[in-house]
Amino acid sequence: MAPSVPVSPLAPKNVPTLPALDGLRLATAAAGIRYAGRTDVLMALFDAGTTAAGVFTKSKCPSAPVEWCREKLKGAAPRALVVNSGNANAFTGKTGRQACKFTAEIAAKAVGCKPSDIFLASTGVIGEPLPAEKFNGVMDQLVSDARADGWLEAAQAIMTTDTFPKVATATAKLGNTKVTINGFAKGAGMIAPDMATMLAYVFTDAPIGAAALQALLKEAVGSTFNAVTIDGDTSTSDTLMAFATGAAAKRGAPRIVRASDPRLTAFRKAFHDVLANLAEQVARDGEGARKLVEIKVEGATSDASARRIAMSIANSPLVKTAFAGEDANWGRVVMAVGKAGEPADRDKLSIWFGGIRVAHKGARDPGYDEAAVSAVMKKPEITLKVALGLGKGRDRVLTCDLTKEYVAINGDYRS
Amino acid sequence: MAPSVPVSPLAPKNVPTLPALDGLRLATAAAGIRYAGRTDVLMALFDAGTTAAGVFTKSKCPSAPVEWCREKLKGAAPRALVVNSGNANAFTGKTGRQACKFTAEIAAKAVGCKPSDIFLASTGVIGEPLPAEKFNGVMDQLVSDARADGWLEAAQAIMTTDTFPKVATATAKLGNTKVTINGFAKGAGMIAPDMATMLAYVFTDAPIGAAALQALLKEAVGSTFNAVTIDGDTSTSDTLMAFATGAAAKRGAPRIVRASDPRLTAFRKAFHDVLANLAEQVARDGEGARKLVEIKVEGATSDASARRIAMSIANSPLVKTAFAGEDANWGRVVMAVGKAGEPADRDKLSIWFGGIRVAHKGARDPGYDEAAVSAVMKKPEITLKVALGLGKGRDRVLTCDLTKEYVAINGDYRS
Repeated sequence: MAPSVPVSPLAPKNVPTLPALDGLRLATAAAGIRYAGRTDVLMALFDAGTTAAGVFTKSKCPSAPVEWCREKLKGAAPRALVVNSGNANAFTGKTGRQACKFTAEIAAKAVGCKPSDIFLASTGVIGEPLPAEKFNGVMDQLVSDARADGWLEAAQAIMTTDTFPKVATATAKLGNTKVTINGFAKGAGMIAPDMATMLAYVFTDAPIGAAALQALLKEAVGSTFNAVTIDGDTSTSDTLMAFATGAAAKRGAPRIVRASDPRLTAFRKAFHDVLANLAEQVARDGEGARKLVEIKVEGATSDASARRIAMSIANSPLVKTAFAGEDANWGRVVMAVGKAGEPADRDKLSIWFGGIRVAHKGARDPGYDEAAVSAVMKKPEITLKVALGLGKGRDRVLTCDLTKEYVAINGDYRS
Repeated sequence: MAPSVPVSPLAPKNVPTLPALDGLRLATAAAGIRYAGRTDVLMALFDAGTTAAGVFTKSKCPSAPVEWCREKLKGAAPRALVVNSGNANAFTGKTGRQACKFTAEIAAKAVGCKPSDIFLASTGVIGEPLPAEKFNGVMDQLVSDARADGWLEAAQAIMTTDTFPKVATATAKLGNTKVTINGFAKGAGMIAPDMATMLAYVFTDAPIGAAALQALLKEAVGSTFNAVTIDGDTSTSDTLMAFATGAAAKRGAPRIVRASDPRLTAFRKAFHDVLANLAEQVARDGEGARKLVEIKVEGATSDASARRIAMSIANSPLVKTAFAGEDANWGRVVMAVGKAGEPADRDKLSIWFGGIRVAHKGARDPGYDEAAVSAVMKKPEITLKVALGLGKGRDRVLTCDLTKEYVAINGDYRS
């Protein structure tokens, strides 16, 4: 089973209570896939008329549920989402595809819909056959248990090495109607960009068409989930999906069909905030993490170049261990800038830790104050800024430090 | 100072005694750059007529000595190599360039040559000004102490977080004359490909022209130093140089001007063997390493694709921690194959640990035997093979596991 570790010191102090969301009900159950004494299956039930959008791992070896969701997304009329923890159903070949089909079939029977209306995800160990027959005993119960609250329980049911459940909520005016956006996510390791990181789900009662929802999701993922890295390792199962029940239409919310609709302004911001909040929580729960590190790069030749440099820094084991050691080792930052393969000129480079400039124009800052920098490094949240002095490209990513606990968690996980 | 850590359990059991090499003398000294109670400067003195070749880091922020060597290599008439440990003279701006110039000037004065005949390297902390004036006291002594043996002492003087000195030797017939190839290297962290990894020097008495030597070096580096990764972090100082004194010409060895000369066959192999031996020793001394891991990829669409997939596996923190935990977690290997961005088809993928096939055609091997695989994982040297089943591309890289000791070494290094 998952190792018992204390809650990350970076966990949010206040966990919001998510309000009910019209058109959607939730339930969880313990199917005994892998863990004992905890829930491991989540079902979200959607009223007819709900739309769906999704972005998935770019892995060339995606899990069976990722393939299932990709196939079913076009023209989808989603009625339920079923997610299990404990087993990723990844690299399970034909058996894996059969497990997806079987799960969707028994879920559809319990819900009263078609198997293709069921969306699936699995997270946990890779390569072990998923014992989907264990879902047999819980599907009817999930459908009958489903209720409008229970968001925290939903987030808990899909945790693996997470140390805290990740939920977020926001409201926005759509037309003159208040609509709600709720979301939850899981993920603590095997987190890297170039995909929708691990499992995250966002739900709204706003009446937004599938194409517009997909566009909103794609637009928001770049600066949120794709801007987080724990270890540079891209999962085979990464899934970010959005579901819009449209129930707010009854309360007068306008139906939206295009992402460019000007009435989306407030919704777009709230939607982005929920995604950004969840993505940050993933970084805060990085396996073994003791420091949340924000990496800002500016003055690059383009935004894309700034992103690649920021990721080179964020994924460098030497930079990450320096943060773990509370060592403002900007030499390693220079190294990571240098290895990114992007335009950089040592003699124009400046580096700040927590607002204190430590390096300037290719050398140590003349006013370098070790004590002040040491004080910054002891904080649980640190911003590292790199100015390249070449252009106007800028970006920002979130990561965490690399500690002995990361190694302990991942050296012992499967055994 | 460098942490006092026990010698890597992967250190070679037998350390060869390197023979004298005509046309070359060595000396070491303690200049007190950073470490107390140990040598930290190496000088290699070359007879007139020696040729040089070099490959250097691809970092966009190279160290001052790397820039010095690149500039001086064209038309070089090398008379000495001066290497210090304890300070990398990297990201030291104008001061760094001045330190290079000053070091070369005082070395040239002691040797009796031009500053441009001196090759330099520095390894250690980045961003601290190099106190080159400390070399003032030792240059004359180095020149007068220089002798034909002392290879192990030379390798020791340039160690930083290395736990053992790395030396290798081979002989080959050139024409009818036996020539010798000696080499040493240092490096244990900040090791990644795309460059000549860390500091490595190879010396021969064979009379080989500079252009041919450069071609031989470039040709050998791809499958040796560039096929080793400890942590995916590319140093600002990586340097691999070769020096050919040509002294064997007096004993009848033919002068070689072209790398395509058929008389080089035996030399080429011996030269490659010395580089491969040294590169493997770098992997064996990976910071905190307890396992030497060889990663073989075959069946890729090209050799370059196989290299990128092998490196994606070798640099994955999750794969590396699994090796540390003696866990044959092939699911993480699938993940690393998938994230490489190279052509891969899950349903054609097979994976072996130490010759035991654990995954076949997209799923767990039907004959999977956990006990047999566990026995393999307990060994200090493990081969991981991945067959993609797509084409004829193949490659192999060396790496090591990621342990808590890596984090400890790098979390405490500078403080």
